Amino acid sequence: MKLFIYTSFNEANRNFLRQAVPSDLTIVFRNELAKEDILPAFQTADIVMGNPPVAWFEEASLNLVFWQLDSAGFEQYQSVKVKATVANMGDFFARPCAETMVGGILAFYRGIPELVKLQEQKKWQGNQVRPHLDLLGNKKVIILGAGTIGQTCKQMLTGFGCQIKMTARQNPAADIFSFEDLLKELPETDVVINTLPGGADKYVSETFIQAMKTGSLYASVGRGSTTDEQALISALQSGKLIGAVLDVTEEEPIPESNPLWEMENVLLTQHTGGGYLGEEEGKVKQLLNNLPRYLQGEEVLFQVNLAKGY
Amino acid sequence: MKLFIYTSFNEANRNFLRQAVPSDLTIVFRNELAKEDILPAFQTADIVMGNPPVAWFEEASLNLVFWQLDSAGFEQYQSVKVKATVANMGDFFARPCAETMVGGILAFYRGIPELVKLQEQKKWQGNQVRPHLDLLGNKKVIILGAGTIGQTCKQMLTGFGCQIKMTARQNPAADIFSFEDLLKELPETDVVINTLPGGADKYVSETFIQAMKTGSLYASVGRGSTTDEQALISALQSGKLIGAVLDVTEEEPIPESNPLWEMENVLLTQHTGGGYLGEEEGKVKQLLNNLPRYLQGEEVLFQVNLAKGY
Repeated sequence: MKLFIYTSFNEANRNFLRQAVPSDLTIVFRNELAKEDILPAFQTADIVMGNPPVAWFEEASLNLVFWQLDSAGFEQYQSVKVKATVANMGDFFARPCAETMVGGILAFYRGIPELVKLQEQKKWQGNQVRPHLDLLGNKKVIILGAGTIGQTCKQMLTGFGCQIKMTARQNPAADIFSFEDLLKELPETDVVINTLPGGADKYVSETFIQAMKTGSLYASVGRGSTTDEQALISALQSGKLIGAVLDVTEEEPIPESNPLWEMENVLLTQHTGGGYLGEEEGKVKQLLNNLPRYLQGEEVLFQVNLAKGY
Repeated sequence: MKLFIYTSFNEANRNFLRQAVPSDLTIVFRNELAKEDILPAFQTADIVMGNPPVAWFEEASLNLVFWQLDSAGFEQYQSVKVKATVANMGDFFARPCAETMVGGILAFYRGIPELVKLQEQKKWQGNQVRPHLDLLGNKKVIILGAGTIGQTCKQMLTGFGCQIKMTARQNPAADIFSFEDLLKELPETDVVINTLPGGADKYVSETFIQAMKTGSLYASVGRGSTTDEQALISALQSGKLIGAVLDVTEEEPIPESNPLWEMENVLLTQHTGGGYLGEEEGKVKQLLNNLPRYLQGEEVLFQVNLAKGY
């Protein structure tokens, strides 16, 4: 059988994988192939690790029996028809995403972006910054989505004494189950954290944003498509919202002409939310957990149904 | 009786105080006086709010009976001899200081200073930043000092799944009670948070820093004097420490020649730790809580003994 690794792994991890996979598997790494050999290697693979372009799946000749995604989300593959067992990364990104959200919100309230810029200019102006700082403690927070990222955010925010509610359509961990009930809560909410997966396009709509409390903060690590970015920008410019911490945006990279780049009340974390030092090793580990299970006919961790989208 | 307010309050708070204090008190605000009238106003006051220069207390003719400091620390007044009842701000600054510490540490691990600088340059480089990020979760943390700031930090860090130990000489909330025991723990500790008051000069000594784990992080909201800054700078330059989050420094403002300004692995929060929007109102409230108690012969909240220093 042939294992094609689409994910970019460094040399150490490639060598480790070569030794660690069952010896009857032929392992091929995208970043060791000549450009013209990449697509054929994918098309003849029995097992794939990583997130190749959707268009690659249009060729009907796939042998694919097992596919390990290297992301948590997979809504971009909803149209893909494969007979393979498909696994995602489960809650692998929950903690780094939640830390970026809570870290970004704290940074915003404690003036850290401003202090970083002052440090660059060697300006000592703490006394001027100080009266504008705010506290996360005791803030009312709504988390959109009660999945692993949302639940991890909730756990972290509890230590700050925040009052937290989560939304979901059905997840019993949530507190709010309809958009109507959510709209009633927003005017009393200080911070909204969006952890929504794809498939909820512009859930944070103009109506949503207009219902938010004046002076409240918006943070998003959900899919960029779940926010009406134009409505968000208007609300940030008008002062309706005090700020935003955005790990995701409608377009990535953000075009140079997008006003978000220059807004002083916006912190762009550039889709780093899921990342950390051990990320590659974690992906290797996920494959090495799932692959023997699949080969032995056991249930694979975090098996997903592409058609569901999320 | 005459109440002299040394603390800078804005006009709204001054007007509020004028109406709120007992009507037999004459209230005088430093920032409403001509320069030459300030010292005499202090010298003839029965009650003082704020932190005047130590030298002002050398005049023996003080009528002072009650003195409300606007800080938590008061070690600079150890040499001051007054008969007055003295109150500090108690745990008023604990939450903002702890939020700046935890926010600064999270910002450091999640690359926020770097992302702020990239945003200024409109550079989309999240993918390059991402593999260097780290997580606060599960880190081993030692908090120097088990007072209100330390305990508030501990509560916040618990939500991240950190393993936390606090040090103190006697406070039963602590886990480590001697410098020797501390030195044994440091090589296994990922983050050290200094919340020490004055009086512990250079407690974080060269010996201390050398005992720290390679690649660990140092954060301080204690007094600047409690850190051997030269030893800290050397350890940051050599890579022994991965970074520092400093709300306090030996000299404030930091002189332009101090290398801390330009170090990429240092986040200077410029003594903003205790600050927040409601700070002035909180100080007004503290005075209005304590003053009637003093006048009625009740016990004053957070009464302190200057000679103790902390």
